[in-house]
Amino acid sequence: MTLYIDYADEIESLIASEALPAGQRLPSVREVSRRRKLSVSTVLQAYRLLEARGLIDARPRSGYYVSSHGAQYPQRPHSAPMVTPAVASVAVDRSELIHAVLHASRSRALIPLGSAFPDPQLFPFARLRRAVYRGLRDIDPHQSVEDLSPGNAELRRQIAIRYHLDGHTVDPEEIVITHGALEALNLCLQAVTRPGDTVLIESPTFYGALQSIERLGRRAIEIPNDPATGLDLARLRDCLATQRPAACWLMPTFQNPTGALMSAENKRLLVELLCAHEIPLIEDDAYAELYYGTQRPPPAHAFDTTGNVLHCGTFSKCLAPGYRIGWAMPGRFAAQVLRCKLESTLAASLPAQVGLAQYLGGSHYDRHLCELRAELQTRRDRIIDRLHRHLPADIEFTQPEGGYVLWLRLPPDIDARELHRRALAAGVAIAPGVLFSTGNTFAGHVRLNYGHPKTTELDEGIARLGTIIDRWHGPGSASSYPR
Amino acid sequence: MTLYIDYADEIESLIASEALPAGQRLPSVREVSRRRKLSVSTVLQAYRLLEARGLIDARPRSGYYVSSHGAQYPQRPHSAPMVTPAVASVAVDRSELIHAVLHASRSRALIPLGSAFPDPQLFPFARLRRAVYRGLRDIDPHQSVEDLSPGNAELRRQIAIRYHLDGHTVDPEEIVITHGALEALNLCLQAVTRPGDTVLIESPTFYGALQSIERLGRRAIEIPNDPATGLDLARLRDCLATQRPAACWLMPTFQNPTGALMSAENKRLLVELLCAHEIPLIEDDAYAELYYGTQRPPPAHAFDTTGNVLHCGTFSKCLAPGYRIGWAMPGRFAAQVLRCKLESTLAASLPAQVGLAQYLGGSHYDRHLCELRAELQTRRDRIIDRLHRHLPADIEFTQPEGGYVLWLRLPPDIDARELHRRALAAGVAIAPGVLFSTGNTFAGHVRLNYGHPKTTELDEGIARLGTIIDRWHGPGSASSYPR
Repeated sequence: MTLYIDYADEIESLIASEALPAGQRLPSVREVSRRRKLSVSTVLQAYRLLEARGLIDARPRSGYYVSSHGAQYPQRPHSAPMVTPAVASVAVDRSELIHAVLHASRSRALIPLGSAFPDPQLFPFARLRRAVYRGLRDIDPHQSVEDLSPGNAELRRQIAIRYHLDGHTVDPEEIVITHGALEALNLCLQAVTRPGDTVLIESPTFYGALQSIERLGRRAIEIPNDPATGLDLARLRDCLATQRPAACWLMPTFQNPTGALMSAENKRLLVELLCAHEIPLIEDDAYAELYYGTQRPPPAHAFDTTGNVLHCGTFSKCLAPGYRIGWAMPGRFAAQVLRCKLESTLAASLPAQVGLAQYLGGSHYDRHLCELRAELQTRRDRIIDRLHRHLPADIEFTQPEGGYVLWLRLPPDIDARELHRRALAAGVAIAPGVLFSTGNTFAGHVRLNYGHPKTTELDEGIARLGTIIDRWHGPGSASSYPR
Repeated sequence: MTLYIDYADEIESLIASEALPAGQRLPSVREVSRRRKLSVSTVLQAYRLLEARGLIDARPRSGYYVSSHGAQYPQRPHSAPMVTPAVASVAVDRSELIHAVLHASRSRALIPLGSAFPDPQLFPFARLRRAVYRGLRDIDPHQSVEDLSPGNAELRRQIAIRYHLDGHTVDPEEIVITHGALEALNLCLQAVTRPGDTVLIESPTFYGALQSIERLGRRAIEIPNDPATGLDLARLRDCLATQRPAACWLMPTFQNPTGALMSAENKRLLVELLCAHEIPLIEDDAYAELYYGTQRPPPAHAFDTTGNVLHCGTFSKCLAPGYRIGWAMPGRFAAQVLRCKLESTLAASLPAQVGLAQYLGGSHYDRHLCELRAELQTRRDRIIDRLHRHLPADIEFTQPEGGYVLWLRLPPDIDARELHRRALAAGVAIAPGVLFSTGNTFAGHVRLNYGHPKTTELDEGIARLGTIIDRWHGPGSASSYPR
């Protein structure tokens, strides 16, 4: 399955160590195939992956060569747009702005660098369609009125098996099926907080958290988030010395918008710290299946021994966008979450539930995930290459190890909302940093989605952003950025 | 399609006028078929319908005879368990009880007279399954991330066409697809009220309204509801003279639990009155397609000229239980409802949306509805007959003209919660009246679902209730009720 990725990684390390210097011609596809006993198509895939990563170039009728800029990659710091928001509980009023920006970004005519979704072409829609048909054929009609929340038993069993395969044993009875992770998160927030309560969030944070906190009349405290390593535990500890939040809402794995991944050890410390203060942790684990490494990072939930973690997952990012199937594992708050689910939307949709249960019972899912992860990693490498090529040298951006978004700090004089407006005019959507916190801390940041645009769109989108930034100070200013 | 119903109605009127007296033998099926130019199966269906209505009996190897009790039918008052709750805004704390009762009633081993759902066998699951398959085959995968709320355009168009066919023109752009009517109602309530606000509800009311009001921290004022004619407008007018509710939540058509139907004129007055006081009306129209008459009763929304009515519909009761597809038409509150939908559950499930759009675009729906309505009317007639046979003469119950629940007042010394407990022990679930208001006004009432149990279950369930009530005061007391 991943032979071509292994071979590409091998070549990449040779390029990184300059064993293969810039300008070096690579051995021909047929030659490698013969000598390494790899199929021609595997070698070709590996070369294409390296091309996508910006490490090699194809020259017509000549072969593949190490790129002139490839050997320096990676060349920039990928972390540290660090912020220190004040530790104070604030009312949230960002929702109007978030809706306006997202609404403006929804047209299919735009290059979707601002999207929250992956490329729909990456998902097995035809297989899912057949699974829905078979799933609906096999059920007893009585299930339509009996399979209310917590949801279809076979689907919950399959979800539990997935965790088990990744080394984390959960009880299917603990799982409540929801309309996507967004509903799961909202149910959990309502289960553990009341209007007026304060919720600890990370900064920057998923804008859905800001909208829920605002709509439900809660307040927020923002704790800084390192764009590479996730939540700052020291700052969390300081905050808990003076504040009494009712809950904490975090995304410890491939955080949206930064792509940050907390280490397993830090997740364990986080769970212990919050447990000691009896503060429930709402864990958004939406991107966990999209890891580029060798195994799924453990969720914070895996370190929970007291039922204090309300864990939320979804198939929307990794298998079935649009199906709106997610789940909550609400620990000791299971009864409250289940009641809230029954009262607000009753149950998840039957065709989607039985279809996913059917699909997960088959053998295709791991193959799909393997391909999806490789493709997203390829796209990450590609956007990083294009950012290097087209954007000024004083930007910084993260290099996520999973998911499909990265977080970028613009040059100091560039305002992200204004960039968003100019980019829209140029046919490109981006997500300005102001969507991801209660204040203006991230006025100079943007989130870029590299998993949604097609390859040519990605190239073109980054090139256009580069042009806009070059022209920021009017004609003639382009040269102010070294290239 | 409905020839057999027409013929059955004709015979029923002959029985009612005693033109066909009790004990009279009906002409044979073949004879009627020949003389009236009806097919044998049509006449047979008509006779079976009359049998279900309790008006005629089949005698083996002899034919059909007018029942001895048929000519007196209907023999009891069907309205007036009238109540006069105090006009005061109260906090609601009924949710725990409601969950406990509903949870206890969920076992498939019980005869489901307490269910909120219709018989799953009454729905075209196989056709819907094929429609889902075709719908998923035909869509562009990009729709999975683009068809967010307000929802699939073709489905919204089809819903608008349904209203149009019933004489009520609506704009598809006004429709927001939701996870069933329950989500639509919850979104509307959140759009027009804030925590602490008071909501006008009817008494008795749908328990989902009580749960939403409690969970979202609103308060309630209950306005009495005539079990036959719906909300008492004079009481509403009195209430509005002294109170300032933020919204009004009603079910003007085939109300749950009473089955009451407000007249079109009263709906018009209701809309005018609430508009004059600038109080938004949340209209739950979940049962409207299940009318037994010749046309769909107009919704209150049809009389709204100012966008003050937030209308909510669903396919859960009439076509696709378990699919969780409903909709809101929120009038001038459209933007708020749409935002709340996007923030809380994002969008409705794709397979269910495209499947229903596909199905509605075909020609089967009207046929299905016609059969469903006839079947539910038959079941209503049957339960009324069985209530007459098995329950004491001093009960009263409604005779709904649509839907599948009726509302029954027990003899004065019978407590409905205790009856619920004894009935569960006897394998029968009922819905005690205490679920349907904030206080104990309806301690002596029950809601009975005649649309869910199979025919034999219905007979057996009512017979068991009769036995329990007979034994209420211990051995020997059965004779205290004339039969």
